[in-house]
Amino acid sequence: MENIKPNLDRLKEDIEKIASFIDNSKLGHTRRGFTKEYKEARVWLREKMEAAGLKTSVDAAANIIGRLKGTDESLKPIMIGSHTDTVENGGMYDGTIGVLGGIEVVRILKEKGIKLRHPLEIVDFTSEEPSEFGLSTIGSKGMIGGLSEEMLQRKDSLGRVLSHAIDDLGGNHKKIKKLSRKKGSVALYLELHNELGPVLDKKKCPLGVVTGIVGIHRYRVIVTGEANHAGTTPMNMRYDALTFTSELILKLQHICMEKNSDDVVGTVGKLNVEPNASNVIPGKCEFEFEVRALHNEVIDEITAEFIYEAQGLSEKRNINIKFDNISKSSSVIIDEKIKEVLKKSCDKAAETMYLPSGAGHDANHIYEIAPVGMIFVPSKDGKSHCPEEYTSYEEIEIGVEALINALLNFDESWR
Amino acid sequence: MENIKPNLDRLKEDIEKIASFIDNSKLGHTRRGFTKEYKEARVWLREKMEAAGLKTSVDAAANIIGRLKGTDESLKPIMIGSHTDTVENGGMYDGTIGVLGGIEVVRILKEKGIKLRHPLEIVDFTSEEPSEFGLSTIGSKGMIGGLSEEMLQRKDSLGRVLSHAIDDLGGNHKKIKKLSRKKGSVALYLELHNELGPVLDKKKCPLGVVTGIVGIHRYRVIVTGEANHAGTTPMNMRYDALTFTSELILKLQHICMEKNSDDVVGTVGKLNVEPNASNVIPGKCEFEFEVRALHNEVIDEITAEFIYEAQGLSEKRNINIKFDNISKSSSVIIDEKIKEVLKKSCDKAAETMYLPSGAGHDANHIYEIAPVGMIFVPSKDGKSHCPEEYTSYEEIEIGVEALINALLNFDESWR
Repeated sequence: MENIKPNLDRLKEDIEKIASFIDNSKLGHTRRGFTKEYKEARVWLREKMEAAGLKTSVDAAANIIGRLKGTDESLKPIMIGSHTDTVENGGMYDGTIGVLGGIEVVRILKEKGIKLRHPLEIVDFTSEEPSEFGLSTIGSKGMIGGLSEEMLQRKDSLGRVLSHAIDDLGGNHKKIKKLSRKKGSVALYLELHNELGPVLDKKKCPLGVVTGIVGIHRYRVIVTGEANHAGTTPMNMRYDALTFTSELILKLQHICMEKNSDDVVGTVGKLNVEPNASNVIPGKCEFEFEVRALHNEVIDEITAEFIYEAQGLSEKRNINIKFDNISKSSSVIIDEKIKEVLKKSCDKAAETMYLPSGAGHDANHIYEIAPVGMIFVPSKDGKSHCPEEYTSYEEIEIGVEALINALLNFDESWR
Repeated sequence: MENIKPNLDRLKEDIEKIASFIDNSKLGHTRRGFTKEYKEARVWLREKMEAAGLKTSVDAAANIIGRLKGTDESLKPIMIGSHTDTVENGGMYDGTIGVLGGIEVVRILKEKGIKLRHPLEIVDFTSEEPSEFGLSTIGSKGMIGGLSEEMLQRKDSLGRVLSHAIDDLGGNHKKIKKLSRKKGSVALYLELHNELGPVLDKKKCPLGVVTGIVGIHRYRVIVTGEANHAGTTPMNMRYDALTFTSELILKLQHICMEKNSDDVVGTVGKLNVEPNASNVIPGKCEFEFEVRALHNEVIDEITAEFIYEAQGLSEKRNINIKFDNISKSSSVIIDEKIKEVLKKSCDKAAETMYLPSGAGHDANHIYEIAPVGMIFVPSKDGKSHCPEEYTSYEEIEIGVEALINALLNFDESWR
């Protein structure tokens, strides 16, 4: 079969149009979930879907769904989705290229006279980024019935309740549980996304097939030494919480690097020192670390080794240490067969490599009810969630071409 | 000669009396310079001096001076001093035992019918601790003419000007320069102080002869890496400012410990991380370090080695580093002859060791115009500048006994 390419001019126009629905008082592209800009963009988006021949609706969790009939309506739908909200001072590509790319796929198939066996659903998931309600991936959580009563009652800084905010977008929070999609009700979920990391750009590789989405375990650690006078306390009579914490930070880095695996990362991103005065030996350090890896056992292994080593050092240095788990999210492992089909589909468009996703996506939740597959395009210098986020239109074109190939391959072979 | 001991009951009564002039809204003992409590304590103190037979006056820098005539008034005075202000939430012994111990020395000599050849001055130095004016050792700086116009114009958080605050205590800021003590105008300065560190307590040694007061060099360091997504940035593509800073913190500790000298200490007490979020690789760290040692060349050597090593690591890690010197204070080296006389004087009272002072004192400034000597008594568990600060009355008694011995020995031999 010939290569089917998207109409880049048309897609570019859409990407630039949605980029006009932003909060101009902020840097970069700011279209936070539930705001005026977000609602305006969704009105426009729904019109675009209808114009592409999709029958649109808004589900109970306020996700916008555009549906295309299949030639065999007894088949479960294939779903293509992503999101159109951004972080504050964010970029122009994160999420939007997945949704707009999906609509372009529908248009190009129609133009080519190609009909799919499966019904197709293009989904704009409600508020994927960390929201003012202290929750991310609200729409995909809602779609699978994962928004608890407690979550729905959360308030943002303006006092607005999430359940009302969802209803205000056209959702119906009371029916979220009842109307949730059940396991096995979706044939396959596909998502095209920018990498949000540096790997494809550094390797000058235009396409990535995601091998999985890493799980994340986060811990809070409290190190308690003894605050003492920095002048009168000899080096060998100190219980310095900061030198001890420095040893731990390097230990975590060492353990993670030793794994020598591209999906394994460990980070201490947050550290506060007390009393934090230049002439006082630090008596207390509080830090948070996280470990991410594709296999939950690997995360467990790393954190166990780290905690064991830290406790040994704690006894040696006579400095107290306390670990508290803050959160554990499980990883997504992409099915071998899906990876194969995606690789073949991508290879036809351009050079392709396998890589893990170090960031979470709506796919994390849809994975609970359906097999998932993801395609990455490069993020220049690995920058994301900032105004400098960049993916060239040529790279986006290749990504959408790969998505078309994948959809056609799966439609043919997948049940 | 028989051992002359202080009247501990009387001294204890004085220490407990001055401990009643405190701000009861704060923890521990809070008698900040220039406050109501401080002024009340000074009125009481001056009466105590007069009662002991001292002729009192307040000098231009508001230091209270109690003078006792010598049998040879052509000799320069011997000075015994310390301070009666405290830090906020401070202890009961820091400074006060030196001033009250000095007054007790005068009383006991009078009772024993001992007359000194040299005139004797007991000095309560104005506001020794870091004050609200951003200055410490105000009185001793003033006594040697070291308070600049800029310093005198500094304001506290209430908008009060230091020059007015000094005048309000009975000083005369306009005459500070003119009336300052000149080099060679004082025969000797002696100070009894609690150690403020753990060495005497840990070694169960009741007396310390100070070998010198360390110099302090302080630097601010800015480490600039690259803030990136903690999930999507592989371990080998990171420019993590915090792991780099951890290496530096341990490097400084290592260099200082390698010197294996009881006067050498190096500390990173203050560290701030940016953006300080658990899911972002730290892009920037700002920290302050200080190095203290008895010999200024040793401090220079350590900081030079540290900066050299840090810059090497900076190139290796491709992370930027910038050093700014914040302050450099010179050390005080106690004269060999003075150390010998002090050691002999202390040995007569109890077991004695030599040790450096890691903290600054009024002696740092008086050293500019006169030879100085210091005697330390233990601080329990090395605690100071906190409510838990503690020295037993038995230890204070031994300290004052040593001070009497020292005064008599110097009066006999010193010119």
